[in-house]
Amino acid sequence: MKNFHANGKCPIRDVLSRLGDKWSMLVLVTLEANGTMRFRDIHNAIADISQRMLTVTLRILEADGLVSRKVYAEVPPRVEYQLTRTGESLMPHIRTLVDWAMQHMPEIVESREGH
Amino acid sequence: MKNFHANGKCPIRDVLSRLGDKWSMLVLVTLEANGTMRFRDIHNAIADISQRMLTVTLRILEADGLVSRKVYAEVPPRVEYQLTRTGESLMPHIRTLVDWAMQHMPEIVESREGH
Repeated sequence: MKNFHANGKCPIRDVLSRLGDKWSMLVLVTLEANGTMRFRDIHNAIADISQRMLTVTLRILEADGLVSRKVYAEVPPRVEYQLTRTGESLMPHIRTLVDWAMQHMPEIVESREGH
Repeated sequence: MKNFHANGKCPIRDVLSRLGDKWSMLVLVTLEANGTMRFRDIHNAIADISQRMLTVTLRILEADGLVSRKVYAEVPPRVEYQLTRTGESLMPHIRTLVDWAMQHMPEIVESREGH
């Protein structure tokens, strides 16, 4: 039987535990749709994410090399976020997931209502 | 600015909040790899998921029409799970995500180590 144990050597688990949280995905989708954004803009675009959760999510995405953070020496300091090239290379794959979801949403909703 | 508010009309949010948890993804990947499985087999294949979380995850996937549940009238009753056709149609898209992750994992790990 094929298993997917958390032994640190399973790339499927690694990617799913990293991308498999909706905030990471939403931040990536928001940055792709809007290009360069400031923290407050991202916060406004997603709305119901807490400041703390957005800070943590951006740090993880930055550490993974998917999002870049640029600080401008202004007063007050301006900080801008955008997708890196690696981050951009991920987006077509997220898009096919979203396209699948839009295509199948009617039958999923119908299935839910039957339960 | 394009936003992704939780107003109940955003399919991107809907799919991400549903698929965007690693347990759902792992259960789907496990069922794809192994075909028809009993509850205990799925539990063994993923190992660190709790019984309660696996039960909840399977119910959601069943309600969404991605996984089917078949009960055999035996003693003790045998219950088997497998992907539905809708569930199967989702898997190629999850696979491209996983393929991307395997391809980019070295640079992601390198980026993490630099932080």
